Formats: sequence, C-alpha cells, structure tokens
Amino acid sequence: MKLQLALDRMDLHQAIELTRKAEESVDWIEVGTSLIKEFGVRSIRELKQAFSDKIIVADMKTIDNAKYELQICFDAGADVVTVMGVAPTVTIETCMEEAAKRNKTVMIDLLNAGEEQIGRLLQYSEAIFCHHISKDQQEANENQKINYHDSPDSEHLQFAVAGGISIDSLDLIKNAKPSVVIIGSAITKASDPKAAAKKLKETIISMEE
Amino acid sequence: MKLQLALDRMDLHQAIELTRKAEESVDWIEVGTSLIKEFGVRSIRELKQAFSDKIIVADMKTIDNAKYELQICFDAGADVVTVMGVAPTVTIETCMEEAAKRNKTVMIDLLNAGEEQIGRLLQYSEAIFCHHISKDQQEANENQKINYHDSPDSEHLQFAVAGGISIDSLDLIKNAKPSVVIIGSAITKASDPKAAAKKLKETIISMEE
Repeated sequence: MKLQLALDRMDLHQAIELTRKAEESVDWIEVGTSLIKEFGVRSIRELKQAFSDKIIVADMKTIDNAKYELQICFDAGADVVTVMGVAPTVTIETCMEEAAKRNKTVMIDLLNAGEEQIGRLLQYSEAIFCHHISKDQQEANENQKINYHDSPDSEHLQFAVAGGISIDSLDLIKNAKPSVVIIGSAITKASDPKAAAKKLKETIISMEE
Repeated sequence: MKLQLALDRMDLHQAIELTRKAEESVDWIEVGTSLIKEFGVRSIRELKQAFSDKIIVADMKTIDNAKYELQICFDAGADVVTVMGVAPTVTIETCMEEAAKRNKTVMIDLLNAGEEQIGRLLQYSEAIFCHHISKDQQEANENQKINYHDSPDSEHLQFAVAGGISIDSLDLIKNAKPSVVIIGSAITKASDPKAAAKKLKETIISMEE
C-alpha cells in the first residue's frame, strides 16, 4: 500500500514545506484540486521540481476537455491524473488514451458514481479506482455512505481510498486492501506532520503483514 | 437572451485581447475551466479587472470543496460560478448557500446528469441550469444527444445552453428560449471575432422578437 499525501487549501510554499517534513514516509504526492484551481498548473510543476523522485498525482478532477487537461498536467510533470467517474464515457476514454501514450496513469474518482456506472468503469483495468468521501460529504457527516469493502475484483484492479482517513479510521479500510491510501489533513493539520506521517506509514505497513 | 463569451485554451493575454474585440456584443464573460486550471484564480481576477462592468462567469465546475472554491472565485471578482449537477447534493446546496450570502449566482452544469437527477436539481430555482454538450462530446460527434427543447418549466427557471453553438446552430435553440447562450470558438476562432460576435448578438436579439 502506498501512502499518498493530499495537499489542499494552502499556498505552494506551505505545500512544499509540509511535504518536506513528511516526505520520508510518503510515497505519492497529490497536488490537490484546490491548489490547481487556485494557482494553476504551476502548482504541479513546482511540486514535481521539489520532489522529482516522487510520484506526483494531479487531482484535476477532469470532467471535460480531457486531452488538453491531461497534456498540460503531464507536461508539468504529473505521473497520475484524476478524472471523474461521473464524466461522459468519451472523456474517460480520452484520458485512458492520453495516459497510455505517455506511459502515465489515470485515477478514476468514483465520487457520486452509481453502482451501474462503477460497473462500467471497471473495464478500464489500467486505471486506479478511487473510493472517495468528498470534503463536503465529510463536513456533512455523510461518512457512513462509503463502503470500503466494496472493491469488486480487487485482486486484479487497483483501488485507492480517500476522504478524511486518519490513524483511527485506517482499520476500516484494512479489508479493502487498497493499493493507495490517500491522506490529507491527518498529516497536513497535525501538530507534528513528520511524526504523523511516520505513524500512518508504519500502521499501513503493519496492515499488509 | 444574454450572450456569454466562453474563453478557453488560450493564455490570459489572448483572453483579454479577444474579449476587447468582442466586448461590444458580449453580455457575460466566461473564464473557462481550462484558464482556471492552467493559470489559477488570477485568470478570474484579471478578466474582472479588465472588464469590470461585465458579468464574469467562473467555469469552476465545482464537484467538491464548494465553500472554499466559491469563496476564492467571488473574492477574485466572479459574479457567477458553475457547479456540476452530478456533484453530491451537499455540494450543490453549499454552492447555493455561499452564492446567496454574497448575492451572487450559481450556474448548475447539467453535463451527463440523468433525467431523475435533473428533476431533483430543478428545486434550486435561484440557479441557472446549463444544458451542455461537452468539448469531448462535440469532438466525438455526440451532438445529437442534447435536446435543447427539454427545458421544463422554462417560464420560471433560467436556462443556459452551451456546446459548439455557432450562427448555423442558433436556430436549434430558438424554442428552448434560454436566458443565456454560451458561445466559445464561433467567436474566439473566427477570423474576425468582433464581426462574428456582432452577427451572433444580432441573431440572438432577432430571435427574441
């Protein structure tokens, strides 16, 4: 299991400083949607430059204009780009094609996708599928809606989990065996981000044993 | 009917130059998703500063983190912000609340929303509902999927139409009586953007008579 650090609602200086503190325990770095929308693709470029040995995930949440959006992300140094599972099929397919051309990866964000829709999406077996409790759902206490155990064919497909995951809730995702555990504020808002990341990473490793 | 000029896939200098050429015939200016994701919220700020007497629409395509995203748009000068109709209900509601607090407007982008979903969304009667053929759908020639006539309760609700609209297709939207007609490349890629915008605006006005 990889630990993906999600960076959101901060400026680029803070994002880089925070990542420096946590980087030893972090596998993938996510340039959050809020960073991209607030500062543009330079947020991807600056994080890739600062952490060139890490996998950079651009949380673009693409829902249209897929070729253009993926190209500007890959050109800026992204290794993984997110697309919304609720996007039109042609958008998902364009993302898969663009990523394949560049040997990069698509993460399909399953936020608010219905069961039937998810079933259709699973054909894109090269993608990583992200079970996601959104920030707005977390704030409205809609956490109970997620079912982390619902990872069909998890032997052959890669799953990620995201949304308010902390040291206390890690146990809930154990059975889902995700490839990627996405953690934001449990690290970025910790009084000691380095120690928080270390503890989360150790717990994740212990879950795999 | 308002004419909304959609600015996409260009830099901010080009966006401002193009808008200057067309501004006489344009009512609303849309800072396209590609401008926001490529250059950040400064794209909204710079267009509002350059055209302070125009309504500025930030095509944020919000699907999560609604309060934060709307606040940064409104702070940058946006008058209207878009949210995806396929977003979780809590996200739509947060957008409606944030806009109401600031006396601003939400445009709900109905891209890929199902009929049932659209039915539920129509309760947000303060919003503008945007029937949208996405760029990716246009490029895949899926134009036929839209039904511009399908504007229930159009007497009491405000609708916008978007997606590859040109002088030749304006006739198709006549019966839908949209409040806002969103036009991008038919102006931005015209050899004479000023003349193209003028002709489109005149045609729109003649349709109202």
